[in-house]
Amino acid sequence: MKLSRVLIYGMGLMGGSLALAIRQKFSDAEITAVVRSEKSKKTILTKNLSHQVFLESEFTSPNWNQYDLVVFSTPVASILKIIPTLPKSGNTIFIDLGSTKETIVSAVESHYGDATHHYISTHPMCGSEQVGPEAAVPDLYVDKLCILTSPKSASNASLESVRLFWEKIGSWTMEMDSKSHDETLAYLSHLPHVISTLLVNVAGSNPTTKKEITGISKPITGGGFRDMSRIAGSNPDMWISIFKENQVFLRKSIDDLIKQLLEFRELFGSNGSFEEDKIRKIWELALVNKEEIRKIHEVSKKHK
Amino acid sequence: MKLSRVLIYGMGLMGGSLALAIRQKFSDAEITAVVRSEKSKKTILTKNLSHQVFLESEFTSPNWNQYDLVVFSTPVASILKIIPTLPKSGNTIFIDLGSTKETIVSAVESHYGDATHHYISTHPMCGSEQVGPEAAVPDLYVDKLCILTSPKSASNASLESVRLFWEKIGSWTMEMDSKSHDETLAYLSHLPHVISTLLVNVAGSNPTTKKEITGISKPITGGGFRDMSRIAGSNPDMWISIFKENQVFLRKSIDDLIKQLLEFRELFGSNGSFEEDKIRKIWELALVNKEEIRKIHEVSKKHK
Repeated sequence: MKLSRVLIYGMGLMGGSLALAIRQKFSDAEITAVVRSEKSKKTILTKNLSHQVFLESEFTSPNWNQYDLVVFSTPVASILKIIPTLPKSGNTIFIDLGSTKETIVSAVESHYGDATHHYISTHPMCGSEQVGPEAAVPDLYVDKLCILTSPKSASNASLESVRLFWEKIGSWTMEMDSKSHDETLAYLSHLPHVISTLLVNVAGSNPTTKKEITGISKPITGGGFRDMSRIAGSNPDMWISIFKENQVFLRKSIDDLIKQLLEFRELFGSNGSFEEDKIRKIWELALVNKEEIRKIHEVSKKHK
Repeated sequence: MKLSRVLIYGMGLMGGSLALAIRQKFSDAEITAVVRSEKSKKTILTKNLSHQVFLESEFTSPNWNQYDLVVFSTPVASILKIIPTLPKSGNTIFIDLGSTKETIVSAVESHYGDATHHYISTHPMCGSEQVGPEAAVPDLYVDKLCILTSPKSASNASLESVRLFWEKIGSWTMEMDSKSHDETLAYLSHLPHVISTLLVNVAGSNPTTKKEITGISKPITGGGFRDMSRIAGSNPDMWISIFKENQVFLRKSIDDLIKQLLEFRELFGSNGSFEEDKIRKIWELALVNKEEIRKIHEVSKKHK
């Protein structure tokens, strides 16, 4: 993949880290950044993340076709506004780093119709609790999964180029259609963030727990709670955007969890019954599911 | 605290690790272990965890008073059976490592009545996914919290000795009454284990997710799911025992979670409404609660 000129539209942690990675892997590429705030612009210049940087307000009626690759790394809602303005000719490859795919892919498909285009939606899975270009690091994408979603009429050559691009950046890739992406991610990413957040609020709203944790200087928690609460409350803007885009599947996943909680709750019912065997089966099933989802055997050393 | 002779009754990961720690910190102490299986006995001898080891079946009508310290590290149900057989005279200090306190403290109080005794219930919070004496390590308790619960009529001197014992082992200590302990732990430890376990089962039972995770060799998960699922399905025997002892508070914590999930779910209702401000408030509250519970500022380096 030839990369002479790259535009990164939106340069927070993700866009900034991608800029650093492109500088390492495609050393000839000239990188242009577009950002919203003066503060980001200053950080990008100080950290030397891109060769040029524009404020969004300075970047009106852009000539998209001057770039080999345009990366949208703004919230999905902003991407949805830009898609209808993209050129229908030229060889520029467009990608985004959006965390949900259905709304983006719909917008792309309705914009291009049956015409062949070069828009491939991608989702590199490498969240962090940190935000902003100041947190950018060159290896954010190394050894991470990047999901590729090809809208209708996207050219196969573009899909291949985008795959090679991400693999050169250091990610491993897989394809998923937009519906499967959003449903799978609801269960494997969005629901876990909701649970982590609600868990600390449930604990914090219990008066006894509140009393015990107040007035001591060290935590009354083992590693379990620590792990389960790490992602709680992180990055509200990003999550609100994700929930908005993916509310149908997220609601479905929440309903599934409530159902399983209600069933579990009944196993030690207030009538004094205690269904030890059923609890054991749930625990055994969890070990199987955990292994299947986390691929523990294959990657135990790296991802433990 | 003088420790010439120590009995550790039940020697899995917890008891075995305590034996190793005692050997380091109280080098004069002679340690006797009691275990259920020949396999454990063999491991203990091979790893040289204790000076002597008996099978439970060989250890009938013990002379408890020959020990300075007796540590019960069996499941709570077994401890409950032994308590009524303990001597009512002598200076032996009894402790246990039970994860729940109400049933133990009740048994102690009904056994000793108003007579002064030396039974202090303790809960060192240092779970692990590993089990058995073969997993024992000398620093399991270092820098961990050990909660001390003093039953009615326990001597203050014993409480102080037990506190000093755990601090010498390397733990930091706090006191909690049995009810507060069990309620707080339901929220900070037991509920998180339930959630982690059900989360992987909810994800694993979604057909789309199942389809996507099958047939690829790497995980479709970021760090969020990985952290949230680490404790899923671990140690069913221990958890079944804990749930049995603490079912009232656990049910309460599950009910609180279901309530918050139902409320959260309504914020992006099927009627098309999307309550962004309320989601943001939940996220902000979570950050406050997380900090209060995890004491992030104080211990960020150690416990991150």
